[in-house]
Amino acid sequence: MLMVVKSGGPAAMPEWRSLYRSLLPELEIVGWDDPELDPARVEYAMVWEPTPGRLAQFPALRVILSSAAGVDHITRDPSVPAHLPIVRMVTPETGERMADFVTACAYAIVRDFPALRDAQTARRWDESLVGRRASETTVAILGLGNLGVACALRLAANGFRVRGWSRTPKQIAQCESFAGDDGLHACVANADIVVNLLPDTAATRNLIDRRFLAALPRGASLINVGRAPQVDIQAVVASLDSGHLHSAFLDVFDSEPLTPNDPLWQHPKLWLSSHIASAVSRESKARQVVKAILADQAGQALEHVYAADFGY
Amino acid sequence: MLMVVKSGGPAAMPEWRSLYRSLLPELEIVGWDDPELDPARVEYAMVWEPTPGRLAQFPALRVILSSAAGVDHITRDPSVPAHLPIVRMVTPETGERMADFVTACAYAIVRDFPALRDAQTARRWDESLVGRRASETTVAILGLGNLGVACALRLAANGFRVRGWSRTPKQIAQCESFAGDDGLHACVANADIVVNLLPDTAATRNLIDRRFLAALPRGASLINVGRAPQVDIQAVVASLDSGHLHSAFLDVFDSEPLTPNDPLWQHPKLWLSSHIASAVSRESKARQVVKAILADQAGQALEHVYAADFGY
Repeated sequence: MLMVVKSGGPAAMPEWRSLYRSLLPELEIVGWDDPELDPARVEYAMVWEPTPGRLAQFPALRVILSSAAGVDHITRDPSVPAHLPIVRMVTPETGERMADFVTACAYAIVRDFPALRDAQTARRWDESLVGRRASETTVAILGLGNLGVACALRLAANGFRVRGWSRTPKQIAQCESFAGDDGLHACVANADIVVNLLPDTAATRNLIDRRFLAALPRGASLINVGRAPQVDIQAVVASLDSGHLHSAFLDVFDSEPLTPNDPLWQHPKLWLSSHIASAVSRESKARQVVKAILADQAGQALEHVYAADFGY
Repeated sequence: MLMVVKSGGPAAMPEWRSLYRSLLPELEIVGWDDPELDPARVEYAMVWEPTPGRLAQFPALRVILSSAAGVDHITRDPSVPAHLPIVRMVTPETGERMADFVTACAYAIVRDFPALRDAQTARRWDESLVGRRASETTVAILGLGNLGVACALRLAANGFRVRGWSRTPKQIAQCESFAGDDGLHACVANADIVVNLLPDTAATRNLIDRRFLAALPRGASLINVGRAPQVDIQAVVASLDSGHLHSAFLDVFDSEPLTPNDPLWQHPKLWLSSHIASAVSRESKARQVVKAILADQAGQALEHVYAADFGY
């Protein structure tokens, strides 16, 4: 069995080799750019942003394993054979880390850390910066997949009022669920915080635009930990500048890494991070890949397989 | 019935009057500096930092109502008659807001917001800033009164490993409880985050000193939302500068308000706030005061009374 790996660059290869050697010794690991790679022998491919056209050149390929929860970095290559299952990287740690990060951002908004930091920079004692209570704060989560549900449950456990929106209606404890176009409007009306966890599909692209933001109550905040194409970033900046949006926490961007000269870095109402919201350890990823490979070898159904009809 | 009020300064008096008029119309409200105040008629005093010597001049005073959870701002005046009950301001909102703020700080530490903010300022994309998981983070709470317990329960609900230390052993769900001098060492050993919620007593003063901080694991963080005298602030700064402490979130200070020229404001590893961790609305405070007055008038036991023997 041979798996080609493109994840974390050449520097990550020694760690991947070591991990897979201990987890599944019979699995041979080859780097994406290894000159000795024999395309005919590749049965599995664990990839992040695979070079377009390349996956189609592996005639024995059985399963594509995405190195991230999203798969748009793979599916945007039209030459990827449609019959090949693409497994999304959903480890137990992914949901937990995402819930940690989204809750961290939600609390930073509730207790107005942006204003506290500004006051500190200005050396200003300001007893008015008391924020609001979690229990009087409504959070709307767009996208109720594994990650959205993990966030909804965690936020509800903290007393936040939680709503969620998804393609199909869901039943989640302590989370008011909405679906469809009408549902979207009802879900985000009066939301103090909007969390984007939608997959990148034709239906979700540019959903969070100028009109969407204007429909939020004044003083609302945005947390984008999903995909960048759902959010019109210039509309976000304009809304922040006009004082309508209070703050935005962004972890994903149209082009990553964000370059040092990108103006977003220094916007005073933006809190940026480097696509780390649900970053899990390589060990956690390797365990998940091994689980999928063993299921495939045993002829069992694969979990977390991308469904082209839905786009995620 | 007459109550003298010193809380929020003269500017707050109209709001206090209006609140008490609607909550308890038979309660007459007079400001601390009102020239028409008749000392002989004062039965209740709601105060923050009362002028030393003044409370002793109200011969009919029945109950002193602290405008804050701590009462050291009252008890440091030796002339306050020892027989007078001092009611600590513990509203349902106080514990909830404290739990909100401490959880906000704990998550900011877990997801390394200080490093994320530094990276943003430096316009640096850094995928290594993944922080740690809440579930692999140990928080030690010093002081298990109403506020400490509220924080312990909230942090436990988020998956943090919670320990607590108090004068007497306590039983709190999902919180390992320690007491006494030996207990303190065991409680904070291997603590990733220490939360100070101790009352200001002779026994707690300067507890968090150079030796205490050195005994914490490298990379630990401090959250001080209790009282300032428990913490040797110069020892905290020295530990941050040496790289031993990772960060400190401070809401209380030896002298408040912190003056604009205080060097603490610009320390890169300190996150400061203006004593707002558990700040509650005046309405919430007024409701609590009215509850105590009605209990006193009915001859019932008062809640949250300061116990001089314990110092809180």
